[in-house]
Amino acid sequence: MRIVAADTGGALLDDAYNPLGLIATVAVLVEKPYRTASLSRVKYADPFNYDMSGRQAIRDEAYLAVELAREVKPDVVHLDSTIGGIEVRKLDEPTIEALGITDRGKEVWKDLSRDLQPLAKKLWEETGIEIIAIGKWSVPVRIAEIYSGIYTAKWAIEYARKNGKVLVGLPRYMRVDIKPGEIYGESLDPREGGLFGKIETNTDGINWELYPNPLVRRYMVLEVWKE
Amino acid sequence: MRIVAADTGGALLDDAYNPLGLIATVAVLVEKPYRTASLSRVKYADPFNYDMSGRQAIRDEAYLAVELAREVKPDVVHLDSTIGGIEVRKLDEPTIEALGITDRGKEVWKDLSRDLQPLAKKLWEETGIEIIAIGKWSVPVRIAEIYSGIYTAKWAIEYARKNGKVLVGLPRYMRVDIKPGEIYGESLDPREGGLFGKIETNTDGINWELYPNPLVRRYMVLEVWKE
Amino acid sequence: MRIVAADTGGALLDDAYNPLGLIATVAVLVEKPYRTASLSRVKYADPFNYDMSGRQAIRDEAYLAVELAREVKPDVVHLDSTIGGIEVRKLDEPTIEALGITDRGKEVWKDLSRDLQPLAKKLWEETGIEIIAIGKWSVPVRIAEIYSGIYTAKWAIEYARKNGKVLVGLPRYMRVDIKPGEIYGESLDPREGGLFGKIETNTDGINWELYPNPLVRRYMVLEVWKE
Repeated sequence: MRIVAADTGGALLDDAYNPLGLIATVAVLVEKPYRTASLSRVKYADPFNYDMSGRQAIRDEAYLAVELAREVKPDVVHLDSTIGGIEVRKLDEPTIEALGITDRGKEVWKDLSRDLQPLAKKLWEETGIEIIAIGKWSVPVRIAEIYSGIYTAKWAIEYARKNGKVLVGLPRYMRVDIKPGEIYGESLDPREGGLFGKIETNTDGINWELYPNPLVRRYMVLEVWKE
Repeated sequence: MRIVAADTGGALLDDAYNPLGLIATVAVLVEKPYRTASLSRVKYADPFNYDMSGRQAIRDEAYLAVELAREVKPDVVHLDSTIGGIEVRKLDEPTIEALGITDRGKEVWKDLSRDLQPLAKKLWEETGIEIIAIGKWSVPVRIAEIYSGIYTAKWAIEYARKNGKVLVGLPRYMRVDIKPGEIYGESLDPREGGLFGKIETNTDGINWELYPNPLVRRYMVLEVWKE
Repeated sequence: MRIVAADTGGALLDDAYNPLGLIATVAVLVEKPYRTASLSRVKYADPFNYDMSGRQAIRDEAYLAVELAREVKPDVVHLDSTIGGIEVRKLDEPTIEALGITDRGKEVWKDLSRDLQPLAKKLWEETGIEIIAIGKWSVPVRIAEIYSGIYTAKWAIEYARKNGKVLVGLPRYMRVDIKPGEIYGESLDPREGGLFGKIETNTDGINWELYPNPLVRRYMVLEVWKE
């Protein structure tokens, strides 16, 4: 099975470890044995000017995933929204009303579906590929999350080179290792069966430290500063 | 403390990783230091013709556990149903009504208790051994679950030898390792303190691969095929 | 950031692994990189005569944390009560009513706040240090919990030397290692990013064994006996 998935993660933090805005939306292509990505694409947000309500993230993820899906022709596209694995092209108002989610979640999806339902319908009509809202059950969505942490480290390296120092928060229970020419990232949850990722990039001219975020158990902080 | 526990696990999967039916009900005897089983017994189901509603599993588990308990005389029997550690021989209708579980759960237990309450009462009257519905809190139940994954691997090896190839899903966050003459299995959750199991069996003539189920995070797929 | 946190943990167990009473309240000072404590203070309870309702623990934790905070002047104090990170000095009756917690939790906090609100107000007025009820999100609270397990091991060693043998239950998913002159403890959850602790103490004259509590998954039992 070949799966495209997308997720958004990594946060710019202030000195008290409070999140200011999200950094990286990533789409990945995941193939058997489903432990890493064969391909990844990133779209950076502006974390200094970010709407934390969450509606922008899922929209960006859908568009980036569709872009990658048109290129690599997967069997299916996974989005990070846990509404039972439903096909997004079928999300009309009565279907959303019938979902077993909160009223707030229904309002969000009624709004989102105005853009995403036609997007999914068009992709399906032209390619036969379904977009499903499977969320936390999907391993490819978790791999996309791990890549969002890896691209967040890349963003932090570039920011620190220009501005001296930066603190970023990685997605849940993952770590990164910044090596010469490469950023490696992996899940800290062994129950997931060994999920990881890596990208090649210039890692010169900086120092870094990784440690637990004292205010958010199971999340790590990456600190990067100019050498 | 000597504990007999039972659980059912391992699923036959189709090519899209959807479960078709469960494979192995296992009863185990667990003794101090409570990390593995001293004895295990398996009863295979027919996964091609399986009632996935779940009521058959708990019934099979109770009967297999009682069979093993009569043989090894443990201090207590643990079943995989999380209803507060109540003694199964006391499960009459008013007691079930008073349980803090869903209405659906009450209906299931009213039906189940028609067989299981007399079974538990008889065991207790004849041996003094209680059967308790302790479920997810019990370490021996988890060890039974790990053995159900190990016996599922054994089933898959025998099926692949005859039929060429098979996909099975293991119970939650566990892995297996198929070695010459032995199948070893262990929990992937280090918080459980090192739970594992192994059985001796003929493992010749097959190849295998283990990887994350892309549709169900924290569950592994075992693929076995004839050499 | 310099954080003082407190927690209570470790339980005396009977031979059937039932908890009889809690053992150790610990306050710790945690500094960057937030993986262990720079300082720890313990106050032992009498586990043979313990009110398991839980109200005593949080009170002991608050007093011990304030004592350590007055000595080491941290930026903030974390208590193990998950009520949204609210400042304890602001916990008057209307504020407690407005919390998103159970009615039972509100009653407990109305009672607790009679002592703890003035305690927190006084600390804040005299030092500017806030006490916040952040609970399970706080890494320093988890480090205090790990230290409560380490001090529980120390208590068990001393008890066994005098009385021959003892069983204690450690806090959730942690292990201890009793070495010559030192007790080391660490989290068994790798998602927490490597939290650990150690204390120097006389460890002569005893033997010990650590194994899973068969009745409470993810909790370990420490057995200590005189050599």
